[in-house]
Amino acid sequence: MKAEIITIGDEILIGQIVDTNSAWIAKELNHAGIEIFQITSVHDDREHILKALENAEKNADLVIITGGLGPTKDDITKKVLCEYFETKLIFHQPTLDAIMQKFRLRNVDMNQLNKDQALLPESCTILSNKQGTAPGMWFEKNDTIFISVPGVPFEMEYLVSEEILPRLRETGRARAIYHRTVLTQGIPESMLAEKLENWEDNLPKEIKLAYLPNPMAVRLRLSALGDNKEKLKVLVEQEIEKLIKIIPGYIYGYDDDEMAGVIGKLLAERGETLAVAESCTGGYISHLITSIPGCSEYYKGSVTSYSNDIKQKLLSVKKDSLAEFGAVSKEVAEQMALGVKEKLGSDYSVATTGIAGPDGGTEEKPVGTVWIAVAGKEKVYSYKYIFVGDKRERNIIRSSQTALQLLRRLILQEL
Amino acid sequence: MKAEIITIGDEILIGQIVDTNSAWIAKELNHAGIEIFQITSVHDDREHILKALENAEKNADLVIITGGLGPTKDDITKKVLCEYFETKLIFHQPTLDAIMQKFRLRNVDMNQLNKDQALLPESCTILSNKQGTAPGMWFEKNDTIFISVPGVPFEMEYLVSEEILPRLRETGRARAIYHRTVLTQGIPESMLAEKLENWEDNLPKEIKLAYLPNPMAVRLRLSALGDNKEKLKVLVEQEIEKLIKIIPGYIYGYDDDEMAGVIGKLLAERGETLAVAESCTGGYISHLITSIPGCSEYYKGSVTSYSNDIKQKLLSVKKDSLAEFGAVSKEVAEQMALGVKEKLGSDYSVATTGIAGPDGGTEEKPVGTVWIAVAGKEKVYSYKYIFVGDKRERNIIRSSQTALQLLRRLILQEL
Repeated sequence: MKAEIITIGDEILIGQIVDTNSAWIAKELNHAGIEIFQITSVHDDREHILKALENAEKNADLVIITGGLGPTKDDITKKVLCEYFETKLIFHQPTLDAIMQKFRLRNVDMNQLNKDQALLPESCTILSNKQGTAPGMWFEKNDTIFISVPGVPFEMEYLVSEEILPRLRETGRARAIYHRTVLTQGIPESMLAEKLENWEDNLPKEIKLAYLPNPMAVRLRLSALGDNKEKLKVLVEQEIEKLIKIIPGYIYGYDDDEMAGVIGKLLAERGETLAVAESCTGGYISHLITSIPGCSEYYKGSVTSYSNDIKQKLLSVKKDSLAEFGAVSKEVAEQMALGVKEKLGSDYSVATTGIAGPDGGTEEKPVGTVWIAVAGKEKVYSYKYIFVGDKRERNIIRSSQTALQLLRRLILQEL
Repeated sequence: MKAEIITIGDEILIGQIVDTNSAWIAKELNHAGIEIFQITSVHDDREHILKALENAEKNADLVIITGGLGPTKDDITKKVLCEYFETKLIFHQPTLDAIMQKFRLRNVDMNQLNKDQALLPESCTILSNKQGTAPGMWFEKNDTIFISVPGVPFEMEYLVSEEILPRLRETGRARAIYHRTVLTQGIPESMLAEKLENWEDNLPKEIKLAYLPNPMAVRLRLSALGDNKEKLKVLVEQEIEKLIKIIPGYIYGYDDDEMAGVIGKLLAERGETLAVAESCTGGYISHLITSIPGCSEYYKGSVTSYSNDIKQKLLSVKKDSLAEFGAVSKEVAEQMALGVKEKLGSDYSVATTGIAGPDGGTEEKPVGTVWIAVAGKEKVYSYKYIFVGDKRERNIIRSSQTALQLLRRLILQEL
C-alpha cells in the first residue's frame, strides 16, 4: 500500500510552524508496513486543494489529509472535500451531541461556528474524535482511501492510532505493530552495540532494532511487525528478558520513563530520602529530581556549591583537601556527598564536581573531567569520567544523568 | 514571486527526521516578500524527482530543492538535475580545490566519493558552500529559477542567507529585510498588547510586529521589509527607542539574549556576587545561572530547601514563621533570601517558595501560587504571583524566569 500525506494550512507555508505531523504519520504508517510516496503542503485554497487531491489519487492507495478543520477554517476544506467526492454537507447528530456535551462540561457557550463542526460530508464514514470537536472523515474513491483529520497534533495522533490504523489492519491493509523502547545509561553506543552483537544477530526476523542515542540515554527501540499484536508482544518481551541478562546494570527504564522518576519510585517504596551536592552540574540534578510530581516525599534538597568557600562552609569539605587535590578530585567529591548527607539528614546523597567548559580545562584535567560520588548508609563510592567535547550544556546533562544512574544502582545495591 | 520547496530524501518520508528545513526556508522567503506556493517531499528516485520538478515549474517562479547531495547520494540527484536541465556533469576546479583544502586541514584522506562532489552540472551557476563540501547549484529554465542546496541545516541556512537571498535581492526578485526581537518578561501578552496599541498603530508601514510568547518571555519581533537594509535598520531601531520608553522595566534583552546571561554581565561589570535559595523551582534558577560560561566569577551557589527543616537549618528560616504563615508565604520567602545571602556571603540573592503542582494546592493557595523575594545590599523585596495552570514544568520555568527578572531590576535599582 502506498500513501501520500497532504497538509493543508498557511501556517506551514509561511514557516510559522514546523510540520511535525507528517513525520509522525510517516513513522507510524511505515511501521505498519505502508510506504509514504510523497508529502505535500498546500494553502487553504480551493483550487490548490483539488489539484493536490487529484495528483494524490493518481499515485497513492491511501491519502491522509491533515489540517484545515478548525472552527474558523473548516468551511473551505469541508466544502472542497464535498466537491471532490461529489457529496454534500449534512448535520451529523452524534457529532453535534458530542460537541454540545463538551461545551456543557466546560461551561462555555456554543456559537454557530462550533455547531457547524457537526456539518459533515454525507458520503464519508465519520471517525469520532474523543480528543476534540472536529471528527475524522473517511472517503473511498476509485480504490483510493482518503482520510481527513484535524491538524492539532494530539487529535491527529489519536485518530491515526485509535481509529485509522485499526481499520486499515482489520481490512488487511496495514500490519500489526508492537514497540518497546529500552533505556540504557552508562555505556556508549559503540560498546553497547558490541555487547549486543550476538543477541541482535539472533533477533526474530519480525523484530527491528534501532539505536537512538541522546545526551540523556542510549535508547534501544524494538519494533515488531506482523499480523497478531499479542504474539508480537510476547516475542518482544522475550527478547527484552534476554537483553536484561546481557546488560543488567545499564537498563534504567522503558519507553517514557525518566531516570529521576525511576529513582523517586525506588525511594518512595523504601521510605528513604535523598540530598544532592552540585558543583559543575550547577543545580541541574536537583531540577531533574524536582521535575517529578510528589518528590517532596523523599527529596530533602540540595546545595550548589559553586565556590570553594561554600564547599567548606556548607558541605564541610576540608580546606586542605581543596588545596592538595583541587576542587575537581575524588576527595572533594566524596566529602561533598558525605557533607550534604550529614547536613541535610538524608539516607542517600550524590555529588558532582568537574569542568563543564567551554573554558577552565587544563592538560591534567581537561574540559569534561567530572568526579561523581554517591553515598548510602554504609559507604561512599566515587568515579571519574572524562566526557568528550566542550559543549557546556551537554556536559552538564551527561554528568547529571550519569550521577543519577550511579545513585539508582547504589539504591539497588548494585555498586 | 511564487516559490515551491522540494525536499529530496527518504529520511523525511519514513518519518526519521522532521522537515525543519522547509519551515526555515519558508519563513526566510516570506520575510523577503516571496510567497511559498507548495512544499513537496519526494524520495531519492529519478522519476519522482523529475515529476516534482516538472510540476513545480508549472506553478512557481522559484524552486528551492534541498537534500540528496551527500557524498553517497548525490549521484542520483545531480544526474537527474542534468537530465532535467539537459546538461552534463563536469569537474568544477574551484570546488575540487575547496574540498581538497578542507580534507588537508582535517588531516583526513579523500576518497573518490569526496572528489566526485566537485562533479557539477555544466550549465548551472555554482554557489560556493563555506560550511560544507557540497555547493549550491542555480539553474534557470523558462523564467523559473531552480536552486539545489544540501539538506544539512546549517549548510542550507548559510547558502540561503549568504548566497541565494542576496542574489535574489540584487536582481530585484527579493526585498531587503531587517529583524529585531525585543525580549520582555513580567507582563502578560494581552496587557502588553494593550499598552502597545498606540505605538503599534503608528508603526511605519514597512514594519510588521509579531508577538511570540513562550514560558520564558513574550518576544516582540519587528520585521522591516523594503529596498535598503540600512534604512530599515534605522527605522526599526527608532521604533525600539520609543518602545523602551513605553515599557521600560519589562525589556530584558534582544534577539538571542538569555536572562541569566544578561544578569551575569551586570554582576561581572559591577564585581558583585549572587546566591540563590529555591523551594518550588527546585534548582532550575541555579541551573539557568550556571548554564552561562564564566558564571563562577559572580555566582556563589544555591540551597534548594525542599523540606521545612532544611529551610530552618541551612537558611535560618524561623520555625514560628513556617508554623504561622506556612512555607509559601511572604515571610518565608524573605527569610530564605536573607538567609542564603548571609550564609553564602553574596551581594544579592533571590528566593522562591510556591506550589508547582500538579498537586498540593489549596483553596487559599492554589497550584501556581509563588512567593519570590530578592535581596540586595539594603533591602529585601517580595512579590506574590499566581500562575494559571497546573503544568509543573511550566510553573517552574515561569517562576524561575520571573525571579531572574526581579533580580535584574533590583541590580539596576529599578525596584
